[in-house]
Amino acid sequence: MATKPAESFTMELQPLDATTAASERAKWLLSSPAPPAPWRQVYSSVRESMLPGSKSAQQPRRSMLLVFLEGLFPILKWGRNYKATKFKNDLLAGLTLASLCIPQSIGYANLAKLDPQYGLYASVVPPLIYALMGSSRELAIGPVAVVSLLLSAMVSKVVDPAADPTLYRRIIFTVTFFTGAFQAMFGVFRLGFLIDFLSHAAVVGFMGGAAIVIGLQQLKGLLGISHFTSKTDVISVLGAVVEALHHQWYPLNFVLGCSFLIFILATRFIGRRYKKVFWLPAVAPLFSVVLSTFIVYLTEADKHGVKIVKHLKGGLNPISVHQLDFGAQHVGEAARIGLICALIALTEAIAVGRSFASIKGYHLDGNKEMVAMGCMNIIGSFTSCYTATGSFSRTAVNFSAGCETVVSNIVMSITVLISLLLFTKLLYYTPLAILASIILSALPGLIDINGAYNIWKVDKLDFLISLGAFFGVLFGSIEIGLLIAVGISFGKIILLSIKPSTEVLGRLPGTDIFCSINQFPVATKIPGIVIIRINSGTLCFANANFIRERILKWLSDENETKESNKAGIRVMILDMTNVMNIDTTGIHAMEELHKKLISRGIELAVANPRWEMINKMKAAKFVEKMGADWIFLSVGDAVEAMASLRRKMNVNGLYAC
Amino acid sequence: MATKPAESFTMELQPLDATTAASERAKWLLSSPAPPAPWRQVYSSVRESMLPGSKSAQQPRRSMLLVFLEGLFPILKWGRNYKATKFKNDLLAGLTLASLCIPQSIGYANLAKLDPQYGLYASVVPPLIYALMGSSRELAIGPVAVVSLLLSAMVSKVVDPAADPTLYRRIIFTVTFFTGAFQAMFGVFRLGFLIDFLSHAAVVGFMGGAAIVIGLQQLKGLLGISHFTSKTDVISVLGAVVEALHHQWYPLNFVLGCSFLIFILATRFIGRRYKKVFWLPAVAPLFSVVLSTFIVYLTEADKHGVKIVKHLKGGLNPISVHQLDFGAQHVGEAARIGLICALIALTEAIAVGRSFASIKGYHLDGNKEMVAMGCMNIIGSFTSCYTATGSFSRTAVNFSAGCETVVSNIVMSITVLISLLLFTKLLYYTPLAILASIILSALPGLIDINGAYNIWKVDKLDFLISLGAFFGVLFGSIEIGLLIAVGISFGKIILLSIKPSTEVLGRLPGTDIFCSINQFPVATKIPGIVIIRINSGTLCFANANFIRERILKWLSDENETKESNKAGIRVMILDMTNVMNIDTTGIHAMEELHKKLISRGIELAVANPRWEMINKMKAAKFVEKMGADWIFLSVGDAVEAMASLRRKMNVNGLYAC
Repeated sequence: MATKPAESFTMELQPLDATTAASERAKWLLSSPAPPAPWRQVYSSVRESMLPGSKSAQQPRRSMLLVFLEGLFPILKWGRNYKATKFKNDLLAGLTLASLCIPQSIGYANLAKLDPQYGLYASVVPPLIYALMGSSRELAIGPVAVVSLLLSAMVSKVVDPAADPTLYRRIIFTVTFFTGAFQAMFGVFRLGFLIDFLSHAAVVGFMGGAAIVIGLQQLKGLLGISHFTSKTDVISVLGAVVEALHHQWYPLNFVLGCSFLIFILATRFIGRRYKKVFWLPAVAPLFSVVLSTFIVYLTEADKHGVKIVKHLKGGLNPISVHQLDFGAQHVGEAARIGLICALIALTEAIAVGRSFASIKGYHLDGNKEMVAMGCMNIIGSFTSCYTATGSFSRTAVNFSAGCETVVSNIVMSITVLISLLLFTKLLYYTPLAILASIILSALPGLIDINGAYNIWKVDKLDFLISLGAFFGVLFGSIEIGLLIAVGISFGKIILLSIKPSTEVLGRLPGTDIFCSINQFPVATKIPGIVIIRINSGTLCFANANFIRERILKWLSDENETKESNKAGIRVMILDMTNVMNIDTTGIHAMEELHKKLISRGIELAVANPRWEMINKMKAAKFVEKMGADWIFLSVGDAVEAMASLRRKMNVNGLYAC
Repeated sequence: MATKPAESFTMELQPLDATTAASERAKWLLSSPAPPAPWRQVYSSVRESMLPGSKSAQQPRRSMLLVFLEGLFPILKWGRNYKATKFKNDLLAGLTLASLCIPQSIGYANLAKLDPQYGLYASVVPPLIYALMGSSRELAIGPVAVVSLLLSAMVSKVVDPAADPTLYRRIIFTVTFFTGAFQAMFGVFRLGFLIDFLSHAAVVGFMGGAAIVIGLQQLKGLLGISHFTSKTDVISVLGAVVEALHHQWYPLNFVLGCSFLIFILATRFIGRRYKKVFWLPAVAPLFSVVLSTFIVYLTEADKHGVKIVKHLKGGLNPISVHQLDFGAQHVGEAARIGLICALIALTEAIAVGRSFASIKGYHLDGNKEMVAMGCMNIIGSFTSCYTATGSFSRTAVNFSAGCETVVSNIVMSITVLISLLLFTKLLYYTPLAILASIILSALPGLIDINGAYNIWKVDKLDFLISLGAFFGVLFGSIEIGLLIAVGISFGKIILLSIKPSTEVLGRLPGTDIFCSINQFPVATKIPGIVIIRINSGTLCFANANFIRERILKWLSDENETKESNKAGIRVMILDMTNVMNIDTTGIHAMEELHKKLISRGIELAVANPRWEMINKMKAAKFVEKMGADWIFLSVGDAVEAMASLRRKMNVNGLYAC
């Protein structure tokens, strides 16, 4: 336990007797129990996230079952208090929702390269399931733009939808099944934190890029182009558009689409201005569809190049269980795409759901939501639905239409079902350009310029992540955008946690608090003692040697410039407050630093080593090497002990030279 | 700047007037200057690592050139003081070194699937260049086992050495050129920290695995097998050996190899026991070669299946500049392999060099060493040498033979050169089994069981990295082992820095220091106030939401169990000491936590937010939202202010219920 003194120090000059209280405190530090072993930490954190709230036991069995069922089907709970007044509001909201949902669903099915009725199917079953299991009151369930694009972009690479539409559709259903299975699994195993790995910044950039890509895809419908690229990046799409403009396009589509787009945007503007006519922007799309269909039917514009929906198969959702394709050829790809879709769909739905829940002041349990969405997609994949999730634009309409509960989703679902049974023939003449303009009108909600500005203001690196995702989606593909965003996000974490940063500390006047002299210009250094704080959460292989070299270099620079100040620096106090993890390389670097400092006649004191740190210093016998008397609980204690040591040395005349 | 009080709090009850000193200190915190912008940090750290020591300017030009030249060629400096007594020691060490180097070099060339003379070539030129430029006094330069194996394993995948030995050799030289170029570049741009990215734990595991793989490769020579697998993993090699044992192997090789292996190991044991005969283990390999060659020549054992070296082309290193292959077909692969070799070679050389330098008490500049090694490999690739680096086994011999300076390398190089000119014909009958046993005898030095045990003792996760590298090399390939090691290393950093860990703090008796109540059982909680420290260097997208949820859950559990204690928790102090980086998601999580706490009637105080943290809190207007009076410089200040707030409220009777 002996410390190795430098030449000018002798053994009896240890700081021990100087401040008994401080050394008493240091003993607490040295005798602290061993921290929990790594596997115990893993076990307890798994248990905590897997089995929450299992403390209040001993409830009667029957009520436990009821609690479980109420947890799984929240409708059992709130359904008991459901009243007619609430239903009136929900009915109104549901009908408004349906009028927006029908044209949007057809458009999104188009975007997903499926026949239009599949969009309607996906607006029937999933909302019903969600109504039983979901706990958000505002979320409007159905197909959404980003997931539709994601599906078509990724599944097209596996199967060409033009060459083999049946197989393409089967793969889409299989992907939907996997999406649901992953979502339910995330919920059951309480892996809700997984969607946190798409950081807010990444989502903002990704959504912005996706909105622009989706908008560009609508140029196909808006210009009446027959042959279009299957790629999604800006350059390919613009190239295809330019080429089409040289060959074959029908201006009538453009005129029709643009005039109704202007109409829809105008109604939205009016709806925002005058709160009384909030329903106007919501019904404008359906109104546009009806009106334009009527115009085309009357003028026979379809014979002059206006592209129309044509056949829209009516009737109930057909069963599609037998269509799921679990053959070895495609199942791996389907599962991969399903995982990506699951994450993106959950990210959008939970972000939307949470923001509206916090407006109304209730809490949304992410894990329960995941189970609900998983079930609705699994059952959806059995009933010819493709991936559905919470839609941003329709949820906003649902909210402003005054929905009270998820019953508005049931109303919407039934309305869509009735349309499927009765009105599909009427949509024969609906021009595709109108569907494109309806999708276009929903896109601005996905571009969050304000959010991007806030990110820029608070964190420049986060903004870089946004930009990476945005341009990745725009010029690469959706997957590349996601990969870039996740890559930069984790690269940033690595970079920040191994940043070999050190700070010199000084005492704040009138206190025992030691702070960075750069951050607090009032802080003053203590002559002869240098206090260095390692500003890094981990002292590990990637930064330990660099930090050691930097401290040594800084020290020799300092001693060089202060040649006049004869005493120079005799003690270095390392503030270890921030170092929460240290590995073998880190311990080794500390040992070398200690050796080098001793050889230069400088003593090393360690202040406030954290739990793991002190434990590893003990395990590596470093505490014995440097001497337990040089370890302190706080910088203040260390400084006090060092000062009294210096006084003593001055008395002994050792320090006078 | 107003704070939102909970229901039971009123505006005049802010903690401001309670402790003027503390709030004064908090003002220092709030008015601290903005931290340097990210790009300034990047710029200054680049400048620091690129242009070091440019402070002491205004030296005369001529002496600056001299200093530069002395820096590049350290021989100019120490050469002036070189004395005959030193040379005597160096001569002895150099000759000992050469006697070990010649058989080892031939064996390693065999391992690298090159003709034996190329191993000797690589022991001539690189040591000479290193003698001019290197600053280590002990490092013995030449081909080494791990790099030879790495080269043959990776280049064999590009070109089959059996099918096209000339092209294979050309690619080897090209790889050597790239290795040198990368090494020199690392040194010039001061990227020495790059080799730190192979953590100590990874290197221990990797070297151990490589040693076993190299040993298994020697079974080919030891058993006299003609056709051997080109794969390096244990299963393939053992499979090939078992197959060969069934068909065609020559026991004589095995008997010969094993008896000399036992002899070499015995001499090593004696050399360790009796320090006087330190030269015995060093010359034993050469003696074995001479003796076994003589035996084979006399008994004509080569006609009974003993494999021999046969032709060994003599003469000086031929020029090979024209053989470098920069054609588009192989240049990419060559550069990739060169990069890996550069890192592995530097890791081994600098680890060996540093450990011997620290025994003799001088410092080795990693960046200068890299430039020296880069130059020696570039020039080596022009003169038919394959990648050379500092050898562990030979450096140890050099050291124990009493070398004084790098002149021993020059002596060795000249001795090898003379052998190349005069004695190569004598090596015709040297049995391959002897070379295999010489390589085998050098392997135990690469397996660091003690090091592995220390790693296990200090850090279990680091041990996992070692194991990953070890088994990756053993059962996958060298590259897979490296990838696993680097992957786990960085995965560990991510895991540790986003670990959503929180600790409850208590006051240490008799101090103002607040510490974890788990680590310090003596610490006591303060009634009505909970102090939570976030034990994570970054509060970011990956852990912020999780930490928020955990704090809220913990709080509701706590309030539930303490129903009897009517007052419950009224104030939460968040100690932000460790949070060095925060991103937009982190700020957002803080805002939500604040909102939720306020709605439960609990006040939130933030203690010791770091520089970046307070800056971002200001940028996001969070300081305004929560009120500047709730931010404190230290936990002690916050507790004091809260306690005086409570006293005041008790007087006012608001807190009595």
